[in-house]
Amino acid sequence: MVGAPLRTWVDGVPDDRVSVFDRGLHYGDGLFETFRVQHGRPCLWRDHRRRLALGAQRLGLPDLDTDRLLAEVRALSADRPLAVVKLLVTRGDGGRGYRPSRDARPRRILSLYPWPDHPPAWSAQGVDVILCQTSVSEQPRLAGIKHLNRLEQVLARDEWDDPAIAEGLMADADGRLVGGTMSNLFLVLGDRLVTPSLDRAGVAGTVRAAVIREAPALGYVIVERGVELADLFAADGAFLTNALIGCWSIRRVGGRDLGQAPLLVALASSIRRLAATPD
Amino acid sequence: MVGAPLRTWVDGVPDDRVSVFDRGLHYGDGLFETFRVQHGRPCLWRDHRRRLALGAQRLGLPDLDTDRLLAEVRALSADRPLAVVKLLVTRGDGGRGYRPSRDARPRRILSLYPWPDHPPAWSAQGVDVILCQTSVSEQPRLAGIKHLNRLEQVLARDEWDDPAIAEGLMADADGRLVGGTMSNLFLVLGDRLVTPSLDRAGVAGTVRAAVIREAPALGYVIVERGVELADLFAADGAFLTNALIGCWSIRRVGGRDLGQAPLLVALASSIRRLAATPD
Repeated sequence: MVGAPLRTWVDGVPDDRVSVFDRGLHYGDGLFETFRVQHGRPCLWRDHRRRLALGAQRLGLPDLDTDRLLAEVRALSADRPLAVVKLLVTRGDGGRGYRPSRDARPRRILSLYPWPDHPPAWSAQGVDVILCQTSVSEQPRLAGIKHLNRLEQVLARDEWDDPAIAEGLMADADGRLVGGTMSNLFLVLGDRLVTPSLDRAGVAGTVRAAVIREAPALGYVIVERGVELADLFAADGAFLTNALIGCWSIRRVGGRDLGQAPLLVALASSIRRLAATPD
Repeated sequence: MVGAPLRTWVDGVPDDRVSVFDRGLHYGDGLFETFRVQHGRPCLWRDHRRRLALGAQRLGLPDLDTDRLLAEVRALSADRPLAVVKLLVTRGDGGRGYRPSRDARPRRILSLYPWPDHPPAWSAQGVDVILCQTSVSEQPRLAGIKHLNRLEQVLARDEWDDPAIAEGLMADADGRLVGGTMSNLFLVLGDRLVTPSLDRAGVAGTVRAAVIREAPALGYVIVERGVELADLFAADGAFLTNALIGCWSIRRVGGRDLGQAPLLVALASSIRRLAATPD
């Protein structure tokens, strides 16, 4: 299997199998997080922790013991200078039927993966992306959180094979851009950073949260609003963020050049530093 | 665990654990079916098989060996006069990231469950249902098929605890009814059976398919179209279908009485027979 993890723990114990009754498997009934870890220290931990808590609240899962979770992330990845930890939290085992049990015992699955080998040029010079045909559906109750119902992203990611394409942008049924399959989108418009509002669809990323928090220090004003494709082509520049890529500026969308504001290189570099700072 | 299966096979072998790398667990990347089985014979097998094939095509999964699958369903349930078999088909193991592998090896998980003990009065006298607050999102690429992204149904089913409520109806964001959390909806309007069109949301059930096929024999004309709540209250009657309940007529929605056409009792009974006939 390509991209297999180095090691996996289930509920704190080394294991690579789970019960077939897990509700994550049956319904996607759970959450996940993907951390950049450096010598056992997760980056943007507080943002990941906050999103997990929001997700648990939305799904009606019990509060997670995040201190124990942090200790496990550290122990799992301590021997690696740079790696990825993926966490799944499911509602645990269940019987047949959608109804969630009031006394669910959530299951946590932590996997350590090698750092992904994206071409260094993607950080240095920006990326080419496509616009996916697969739309993102709108569901306010699930918008923003990182839940396990990700078939739309799977279908969208299956739309291209070309290794020169770094990411695919996704829009809702009305053509409003939501983000990339695995990343958030920002437009640079003068001194404003415009990012799609995610109250009806999309995942509110941890680097996105950091950019919003640090925007004043970076010299920008944040605007969350609807973003059309025309806005993207009219912008001074645009970039993608997530916990692993940090920040990639976008060179072309579907073969069409985007604005490349001179400040974009420095801004992308600053955001990569934000994403690479352990809490 | 309440509602645990009697036995489970993974890829044809008795087992109750799967790899934590299964893409069904990570992304809900797969399909399921729930069969009524009688002495090892699944009811509405051809409808289940057809929906599975459609789902596999939509998700880009390899064709399933349905002959082998049928043999396994039979062997798993042969010693039971009446039981439930749930099948999960996932894309199998995968590495990190949404991209589906071109050479995925799907995994099949078959579980045998006892027949559910719904109150007999629900078949005989009809059911009370509520209207759920949780909406169904619209995604044409996933509409109709029975995929593993079912968080909306989980959230909707979590909206009521009252054991006197049999089901919850769900609508899309525009208020068009899609069906129940686990069932399809039909309205009786004179000699017409009106059922929500499922080209943008919902699961096209096997009993729904049988009702559509057999409608002329039952003396009805089928109409698939948008259905509003007002249509429901104006109808001569309404009923719910799925492979396990067969058919329940609806008595009340959110405490409000529905029409109870005299023919409804006989019609519901005929549909239950359709659902209980092994292929």
